[in-house]
Amino acid sequence: MTSPGGELEFVDWISRQAADTNQILEVGIGDDAAVQRVTQGQHVVVAKDVLMEGAHFEFETATPELVGRKALAVNLSDIAAMGARPVSVYIGLVLAKSRGIEFARRVDAGIRELANQYNVCIAGGDTNTWDGPLVISVTVLGEVAPNSAIQRNGAQPGDVLFVSGPLGGSLASGRHLTFEPRLELAQQLTSACKVNAMMDISDGLALDCTRMLKASGAGAILESSSIPIHADVSFSLPTEQRLQHALHDGEDFELLIALSEEQVELLADSKLNTPLQRIGRVTADPGLFLQEGSGQLKLLEPRGYEHQFK
Amino acid sequence: MTSPGGELEFVDWISRQAADTNQILEVGIGDDAAVQRVTQGQHVVVAKDVLMEGAHFEFETATPELVGRKALAVNLSDIAAMGARPVSVYIGLVLAKSRGIEFARRVDAGIRELANQYNVCIAGGDTNTWDGPLVISVTVLGEVAPNSAIQRNGAQPGDVLFVSGPLGGSLASGRHLTFEPRLELAQQLTSACKVNAMMDISDGLALDCTRMLKASGAGAILESSSIPIHADVSFSLPTEQRLQHALHDGEDFELLIALSEEQVELLADSKLNTPLQRIGRVTADPGLFLQEGSGQLKLLEPRGYEHQFK
Repeated sequence: MTSPGGELEFVDWISRQAADTNQILEVGIGDDAAVQRVTQGQHVVVAKDVLMEGAHFEFETATPELVGRKALAVNLSDIAAMGARPVSVYIGLVLAKSRGIEFARRVDAGIRELANQYNVCIAGGDTNTWDGPLVISVTVLGEVAPNSAIQRNGAQPGDVLFVSGPLGGSLASGRHLTFEPRLELAQQLTSACKVNAMMDISDGLALDCTRMLKASGAGAILESSSIPIHADVSFSLPTEQRLQHALHDGEDFELLIALSEEQVELLADSKLNTPLQRIGRVTADPGLFLQEGSGQLKLLEPRGYEHQFK
Repeated sequence: MTSPGGELEFVDWISRQAADTNQILEVGIGDDAAVQRVTQGQHVVVAKDVLMEGAHFEFETATPELVGRKALAVNLSDIAAMGARPVSVYIGLVLAKSRGIEFARRVDAGIRELANQYNVCIAGGDTNTWDGPLVISVTVLGEVAPNSAIQRNGAQPGDVLFVSGPLGGSLASGRHLTFEPRLELAQQLTSACKVNAMMDISDGLALDCTRMLKASGAGAILESSSIPIHADVSFSLPTEQRLQHALHDGEDFELLIALSEEQVELLADSKLNTPLQRIGRVTADPGLFLQEGSGQLKLLEPRGYEHQFK
């Protein structure tokens, strides 16, 4: 149902919904800017991801609620990858006028449900309308203790590489709309051991692993038989083709983690809510290689999802 | 000139530009999220505004640099209106593929020049491409002492209302691209006296003043002869029409300020870098009225720029 109404009405509605989240906020929705308390001694972590209709979702295969959910989830995944705790979210919406206010509320409901699940406060934002496609720009603020954020540049030669779940087929199956950001796992991991490097896999394992290795000044050998392939990748495909999906599809939002052997042993006794899957090892020599059954090494091209200028 | 290149190349380029701003950042551009130090005891202020090509700017009348500048300036204006100090900026860009990387650099250069002017650190963001119009989503983080942020809901009956400059004609003249956010003035004001309420005028004096009064549970009488009309509003128009532009055009980004008589006296000796212009007085009775030369009161309709759903 489409209700008539302006931006003001929607903003009023949002701020009524948010009335109970104001413990964190000195000034909440409805002023020029929000004012947020920070836990003493903590640093602020800021994730910002913009999602666009046609690039990151299509309404042929997604509800407005799931699109809102995803816009927050990808940012929570970034916060998880830093080993941080999410606190608040700021939402920039660019809505098609023709879709009406009820559509906007459904997008907001999807954001709100996930925010509630992870106790994240909806603290502010900006709502605009136009005749174009939906754009959602989400900024999440989190907190982390000084020098405790897990960066992607700390992988060391000899480190074991893990992923937090099976990869591939996320966009095709719709999993990219419903995935659970690995916040709990990341918290468990950083409590249980020292993580050398961590990042989330958004553009495909091959491309994102290359980014971690480049930042760390290292290389890696992945064992092709150890790469977990998601059941969303059709079993009717040849194995080699299924592996390609796992390596390059992207939108997995699993964590890629580098741990020293010592820390792996330390971790053995911990009960993680998500089992880690060992996929390979960091090397001093640069380059990302895939070790096949025969033992042969094959250079893994870092192709994956990258926005291109024409 | 359009250079071929991907998003990665642009992100690499941005992070090289930002190499000197890392005093504030524990983790800067290039990781899943940024990690930012917060001054002990301060609260974090968060402003988020999304600008869209066709709604907030057109490339027939704006350069990429000016568009980038505006995207940051409107957020700095919000930070100023809170009486806060800006610290860092996070930029979400949605760029047309066909415009190429050089265009992206020019937008970024406009943001960077203004950021440097106000010592704001470019701390992170997200760059995407598509075939649609330019969208820039900017989040600015600032700092303010606890209970020191100036809200819009504190105007008291008897308060004097001021604006920080002449109004009207901003969009038509291009002033909306080049205005100076009133950061200095806001700092001087909050140091010199107690400000009851403050906000920036983005959607027109009539609409924004109505917002302040509604939030404060008050009304106001503005003197029509005291409303400063910008020289950008054509002098060839009848006075009444010029006044309408000042009241409703919007995009002025001047501050609207409510001060008690006592504080006005206190302020008299201060040297402000921008003179304040007295425009009226807050009343206990609700409603925004315009007092004309004859002394007659006319209800001022809060029309102005508002995004509408069809």
